[in-house]
Amino acid sequence: MDAKHLRDLGQQLRVDAVHAAAAAGSGHPTSSMSAADLMAVLLAEHLRYDFTMPGHPGNDRLIFSKGHASPLLYAMYRAAGVVDDDELLSFRALGSRLEGHPTPRLPWVDVATGSLGLGLPAGVGMALAAARLENSPYQVWVLCGDSELAEGSMWEAFEHAGYERLDNLTAIIDVNRLGQRGETRHGWDTAAYAQRIGAFGWHTIEIDGHDIEAIDDAYTEVLGTHRKPTAILARTMKGRGVAAVQDAEGAHGKPVPDTEEAIAELGGIRNIRVPARPPSGAPGRHPAAGENGSRLVLPEYERGEQVATRTAVGAALAALGTVRPDVVVLDGEVSDSTRTEEFARHHPDRFFEFFIAEQQMVAAALGMQVHGWVPFAATFAAFWARAYDFIRMAAIGQANLKLIGSHAGVSIGQDGPSQMGLEDLAMLRAVHDSVVLYPCDANQAAALTAALADHYGIGYLRATRGDTPVIYRAGERFPIGGSKVLRSSETDQVTIIGAGITVHEALCAADALAAGGIAARVIDLYSVKPVDAQGLRTAAEATGAFVTVEDHWAEGGLGDAVLAAFANGHQAPRITKLAVHTMPGSASPDEQLHAAGIDAKAIEAAARALVADRVPL
Amino acid sequence: MDAKHLRDLGQQLRVDAVHAAAAAGSGHPTSSMSAADLMAVLLAEHLRYDFTMPGHPGNDRLIFSKGHASPLLYAMYRAAGVVDDDELLSFRALGSRLEGHPTPRLPWVDVATGSLGLGLPAGVGMALAAARLENSPYQVWVLCGDSELAEGSMWEAFEHAGYERLDNLTAIIDVNRLGQRGETRHGWDTAAYAQRIGAFGWHTIEIDGHDIEAIDDAYTEVLGTHRKPTAILARTMKGRGVAAVQDAEGAHGKPVPDTEEAIAELGGIRNIRVPARPPSGAPGRHPAAGENGSRLVLPEYERGEQVATRTAVGAALAALGTVRPDVVVLDGEVSDSTRTEEFARHHPDRFFEFFIAEQQMVAAALGMQVHGWVPFAATFAAFWARAYDFIRMAAIGQANLKLIGSHAGVSIGQDGPSQMGLEDLAMLRAVHDSVVLYPCDANQAAALTAALADHYGIGYLRATRGDTPVIYRAGERFPIGGSKVLRSSETDQVTIIGAGITVHEALCAADALAAGGIAARVIDLYSVKPVDAQGLRTAAEATGAFVTVEDHWAEGGLGDAVLAAFANGHQAPRITKLAVHTMPGSASPDEQLHAAGIDAKAIEAAARALVADRVPL
Repeated sequence: MDAKHLRDLGQQLRVDAVHAAAAAGSGHPTSSMSAADLMAVLLAEHLRYDFTMPGHPGNDRLIFSKGHASPLLYAMYRAAGVVDDDELLSFRALGSRLEGHPTPRLPWVDVATGSLGLGLPAGVGMALAAARLENSPYQVWVLCGDSELAEGSMWEAFEHAGYERLDNLTAIIDVNRLGQRGETRHGWDTAAYAQRIGAFGWHTIEIDGHDIEAIDDAYTEVLGTHRKPTAILARTMKGRGVAAVQDAEGAHGKPVPDTEEAIAELGGIRNIRVPARPPSGAPGRHPAAGENGSRLVLPEYERGEQVATRTAVGAALAALGTVRPDVVVLDGEVSDSTRTEEFARHHPDRFFEFFIAEQQMVAAALGMQVHGWVPFAATFAAFWARAYDFIRMAAIGQANLKLIGSHAGVSIGQDGPSQMGLEDLAMLRAVHDSVVLYPCDANQAAALTAALADHYGIGYLRATRGDTPVIYRAGERFPIGGSKVLRSSETDQVTIIGAGITVHEALCAADALAAGGIAARVIDLYSVKPVDAQGLRTAAEATGAFVTVEDHWAEGGLGDAVLAAFANGHQAPRITKLAVHTMPGSASPDEQLHAAGIDAKAIEAAARALVADRVPL
Repeated sequence: MDAKHLRDLGQQLRVDAVHAAAAAGSGHPTSSMSAADLMAVLLAEHLRYDFTMPGHPGNDRLIFSKGHASPLLYAMYRAAGVVDDDELLSFRALGSRLEGHPTPRLPWVDVATGSLGLGLPAGVGMALAAARLENSPYQVWVLCGDSELAEGSMWEAFEHAGYERLDNLTAIIDVNRLGQRGETRHGWDTAAYAQRIGAFGWHTIEIDGHDIEAIDDAYTEVLGTHRKPTAILARTMKGRGVAAVQDAEGAHGKPVPDTEEAIAELGGIRNIRVPARPPSGAPGRHPAAGENGSRLVLPEYERGEQVATRTAVGAALAALGTVRPDVVVLDGEVSDSTRTEEFARHHPDRFFEFFIAEQQMVAAALGMQVHGWVPFAATFAAFWARAYDFIRMAAIGQANLKLIGSHAGVSIGQDGPSQMGLEDLAMLRAVHDSVVLYPCDANQAAALTAALADHYGIGYLRATRGDTPVIYRAGERFPIGGSKVLRSSETDQVTIIGAGITVHEALCAADALAAGGIAARVIDLYSVKPVDAQGLRTAAEATGAFVTVEDHWAEGGLGDAVLAAFANGHQAPRITKLAVHTMPGSASPDEQLHAAGIDAKAIEAAARALVADRVPL
């Protein structure tokens, strides 16, 4: 180790961060400068990463959990020789890969960061994949801010990594004392952090984050530490090296006042190139290893049988696991309810228990999918709200992530509204490029689970707690973006559109309407997003009137998805939207459906009113 | 203290829990039985609470963070004499106040729980209110589960309470070893928990949770502990007292197998009544104290001035604080961006810094509003996704909670998608009975901030980062549920509907259309929920065609709100919905609006196509 060389490299990273932010007119140079020495030593002496082969499975991983320090990351890429001067100065410009916060538009970025508290739990997922799935020796290095230690998700990560004894995971914590608007809770008290993190079973090292030798020693100590993850608490100065901003309040998130002066103060522009260090070992097990070419044998159910869709999902996951060695399942301590226990029983090596830590669970799935694992994460539909920020970030990170939400809607019955999941469709529809599926019977649930595994991207499957009758034959196909017409005739006067539990109510209502001389079409809109716009338009032309019915709040769910199919200038049919409007309490499932006005009786009444051309007040 | 009497009371609570769950046919008796002795001693010997006056401001607070142990809570109410036998056995029945998880439908419940990890951070809010707002000596007791210690939100609470030295807060942790599907991470290792919680500056006490004397001693120690919150780590047995379920896996969340036998084993039905213990001291400062009768003087802006709506919100909050002593403001370490720093400057005693811990911030607001404080919590629109579960729970808890989301939409520019808030409207619209407001200019922003303060319930105000021109005169009124027609004539062929940043684009588009001979109506739909359905119907009748335009994903936002106004059988106009459809990167605000297809040019093109009756593909 040549300390002088590393100090120069640190200064180069600072200069480049200052330069990039100046070119952009915005960005976070001061938050980059505090961590520049930490990253210089890591890049030159310890990171085993072939920047020319970012997809190499043996590469170490590097995550900027403090994503706003992106100028530092991009400066590292310049030092590694994969980003040139012109691209560095395109920082934050239209079309540049060098965004304000790192995203996988850059091949060396695995997960999008920028929402604080995400990078470390994502690193836990990568470290778990290395240790438990791939048997690979790569290290996971996560640069964290001190401010983000306030986020609970970080402590979910500390707890989980400590519990799993992930000695391939290192949190490098840049304790620069200053948050956005002033001092952090603990300022430069690295001992306060070490005490907390150490209590979770981590090895901790406190250093001066600008002492090159101390940094190098710390990384060396990391690599010699076994059965424990390590946190390096590095006391640093925000804006280090430029007197005008060093350790100064009010200098967050903006270029330094005088770029030329600052660059001169930092020793001018340098052109140190850091040679690539080869990955440290064998690539490890590949997600697709073990592919046996067998045909997927999904569980099959007889028509008329009463089976909960969640049960079929669990069985389908187990079946998928048998033929798809890349499928892994994560659960938040409810596997007996979500029925992922079925997968766990058959494929214990690919099942991950996260206890009740939904944010860590989603972040770990993000970390695992980087190398091609296909993660299904499961909990109650209601509790995905706990991880919504990470799901949103997963979309920014172009991740392949499948979520199962069981126990959706008022139909769960007695447990009451805290367990119901009445906003999950709205929440997941509003995720970029997501797929939202909601099966009504067991054969459909199994088929849609398999469809999700084959679809790259963020997919959500909503499952029902109670038993519902099987109405489809085994083997029927349900393409994403499709729908099923369950009743139709040439004289249909109205179309009833449901999904999941309400499909069965819709069928009952159609029977009652038929008995009263009204022919009603029934559509099973199992693909809530993308929605079958063409199918809906055909029904609109045929019947001119829709009743939509969903076990969900009125906002953002199935009804809105139907309406949106007519929001590109097409003439919409008259629509009555039935949904949950009042706060439920406890009651039996049937009582709940009735009280919410989404049972067969309510559908029948709404259809009659529409057909009679009566417009409700 | 009479240990025999307290042991009997503990058994009575167990019997009643078993009894209630048996009557319901569901529920969590075993999770109640583990904590029965803890609650018996608290109720009889330490809790200062007049159950006949639940609104008494000097009452201690009792929160069941493990809300599924509701049978135990209701058994305590029976012992206190406020719930009779019949009501106890109505547990989980339609119409009963005794829901599966506690809600404020019961006058002794302050916050709805049932989503784990919420009760303790809500208790932090109550304890902060007692210590910093009310100067009141009441204690906050929170019964926590061991499973929920996996939730990051609990650690946000441990950190914040330790930092604030809240010695009026006690976490009673029922370490019964068993989660829903098996053992917890740390089983009965209370030392593991004590080590972690102690590291956050808490006093910790480890006891046998079935040893009456030890429990009593622990509570006595709590009351003698100063400048630190206390956590009691109580080793207990799930299902304690009934051999068939005691410390047994597979006995979670269901009635015991043989009710009669279990009740006999527990010593039969008892009728111990615990006399109310009076509140411990003076009621403390009331939220309305200091009301000076002054008229609210909102900030005023000149038409044509360029002002960011977030700036006006900050100034309006400061003005509100002057005449409304009940208004408090919470921020997540971004007060210089959200501009709540303006409130902090004028009313430092009612400003609360939560650092970057959005879940703790929302939960604290929930805790504070219990006694009538009116909390406004602020962060970037994007980061409310972090606290969505708690916002959802706030609605179940009938809370009075105001959220400010700044930096909404692609118009923030260079920072990129992680900071944008493109799902906040969908997320907040799907909260029961919420109000969602989105001002386009500074005078409107100030007025809507004041309107939120006057509205009881969950309200969200979306604010824009960049400066926008002031178009309304100061003093104009903007009722919740209203809209403003900004351009109209008798020959209007199309209506353009925007809110916030897109109102200005809509006005530009209307000017361009007018120059081309097309008269366009422009509506400022500042109240996204409730939406002005009547105003929209009038515009539909007049023009027959709508262009909606929003700086938000296409799902669940303004466009869907407009569509939903026609979802009760009314004939909808033809609608073209403009929204963000592609993942943004970094770019200038104008470039972002253009790339997303929500700028004036895109609006103009969409309006022209609609008017020409051209239906896009």
